[in-house]
Amino acid sequence: MTEQELTDRVLDKVAGAPDLRFRDVMLALVKHLHGFIREVGLTQEEWRRAIDFLTATGQKCDAKRQEFILLSDTLGVSMLVDAVNHRLHQGATESTVLGPFHVAGAPMLPLGADIAEGEPGVPTFVSGRVTDVGGKPIAGAELDVWQTDADGFYDVQRPSLGAMRLRGKFTTDAEGGYRFRTVKPVSYPIPTDGPVGRMLEKLGSHPYRPAHLHMIVSAEGHAPIATHIFVAGDPYIDSDAVFGVKPSLIADFTEHAPGPAPDGTRMDRPFCDIRFDFKLSPIQP
Amino acid sequence: MTEQELTDRVLDKVAGAPDLRFRDVMLALVKHLHGFIREVGLTQEEWRRAIDFLTATGQKCDAKRQEFILLSDTLGVSMLVDAVNHRLHQGATESTVLGPFHVAGAPMLPLGADIAEGEPGVPTFVSGRVTDVGGKPIAGAELDVWQTDADGFYDVQRPSLGAMRLRGKFTTDAEGGYRFRTVKPVSYPIPTDGPVGRMLEKLGSHPYRPAHLHMIVSAEGHAPIATHIFVAGDPYIDSDAVFGVKPSLIADFTEHAPGPAPDGTRMDRPFCDIRFDFKLSPIQP
Repeated sequence: MTEQELTDRVLDKVAGAPDLRFRDVMLALVKHLHGFIREVGLTQEEWRRAIDFLTATGQKCDAKRQEFILLSDTLGVSMLVDAVNHRLHQGATESTVLGPFHVAGAPMLPLGADIAEGEPGVPTFVSGRVTDVGGKPIAGAELDVWQTDADGFYDVQRPSLGAMRLRGKFTTDAEGGYRFRTVKPVSYPIPTDGPVGRMLEKLGSHPYRPAHLHMIVSAEGHAPIATHIFVAGDPYIDSDAVFGVKPSLIADFTEHAPGPAPDGTRMDRPFCDIRFDFKLSPIQP
Repeated sequence: MTEQELTDRVLDKVAGAPDLRFRDVMLALVKHLHGFIREVGLTQEEWRRAIDFLTATGQKCDAKRQEFILLSDTLGVSMLVDAVNHRLHQGATESTVLGPFHVAGAPMLPLGADIAEGEPGVPTFVSGRVTDVGGKPIAGAELDVWQTDADGFYDVQRPSLGAMRLRGKFTTDAEGGYRFRTVKPVSYPIPTDGPVGRMLEKLGSHPYRPAHLHMIVSAEGHAPIATHIFVAGDPYIDSDAVFGVKPSLIADFTEHAPGPAPDGTRMDRPFCDIRFDFKLSPIQP
């Protein structure tokens, strides 16, 4: 049996799958998986190491850690899946990786609220509008926001907290406007104490993500979007460990000396403000 | 950023890996992984299910169960890796999957010994010679043999046994000859209570392997070989769940009425005998 005959036998078997979409996905998977192995002439020892790596990756996963998503992120797979699923949304705000730190059920807060609640960090005022792709304001759109603290950790990475922090949901006003206060996000490494960290090391790659705010923006009749606002000038802006940066998602976090703040209060220390508008696509038919 | 630009950015990063072999393997992996995703237009929901599947596969593994090897086996990957690593061994006995049930340290037994030790099943006498590819006998070659019991289970799948069973090592005599007694192996399903079982079900494929004896044959100065002897006429001989069958590895388990046996004893019930010769390659320079 030649190598190609073997591949053909596997393809013949997969071709019998009754679910036609599953069949097509598996046919392409087998074709590429076998193509990869033939192309590199994968050795038995490399195969064993791959089995060990995949096993360790699965076993590193628990309720708060998803090492396979991290693997997908660091190989650009998550961004590619995002890209192939948003091929039609021209004109809308671009999406990027969801990441593993979104938590359902963040508190619904009034516009202007502070999600940082006294956390250390540079106070930052975020505002903008949510519109459709034609620029028409969308009232009642929801922004689900989350981010790291000033040390680069999400609340779920600090189990001792026992509560949500630096998360909140906001609803746009009649003009599609939103505004909230927070602290400036910082760049941070993805977790490196698992198999993916060892892979990055062997790749000679750093594990850092440039500073960003996460949000899912959604509104009735429109396609929801999971995206980031990246901090312009971040040292990792051109080398995001998960390939999440798109130029349209980078914003100036303008720094101000102490004085009047955008929310009408007076700040006694330096602060940032940033304006970012979101454009949502209609739901695809 | 277009889909191709994204892939190029990932390839650029991987191209910086200091280990050149690792670099080449990872470049091919990223190329095929991204190619697969673009080709099928993998949806976010399919991606999530893939993440869940891989995670569950890793978490199903323990000291006695290797679900990723099972996945590799059932997608023909193990056989393909075997094939690409034995491209040069023309004329030698063909190899096939090692499988997950080999255990180091099986007992060294005298030629002619019975590895079945009173197990139920059809008594079977196995014999043959180990030679080099030119047909010259190899004295002192080792056969490490293992197989299922008459119910289709390996000893390690019956934890209550607490001991090895249906395993043994034999050393060829001055003419390269070997012989041992056992029971006829039976076809059996690979474990289906994990993610791979669910995949096979969705593929509409059965999980059975045709009946076979496992062995690793090794001798000084020669390339060791992990292979099977398959039972001719098995109902699954053309549809092995792990694609392990090669025509050259199928042997007639000839059935005999009660009477004189190959080892000089007299059998009071029907028995099989089978002759199979192994040819080993010189070690590649």
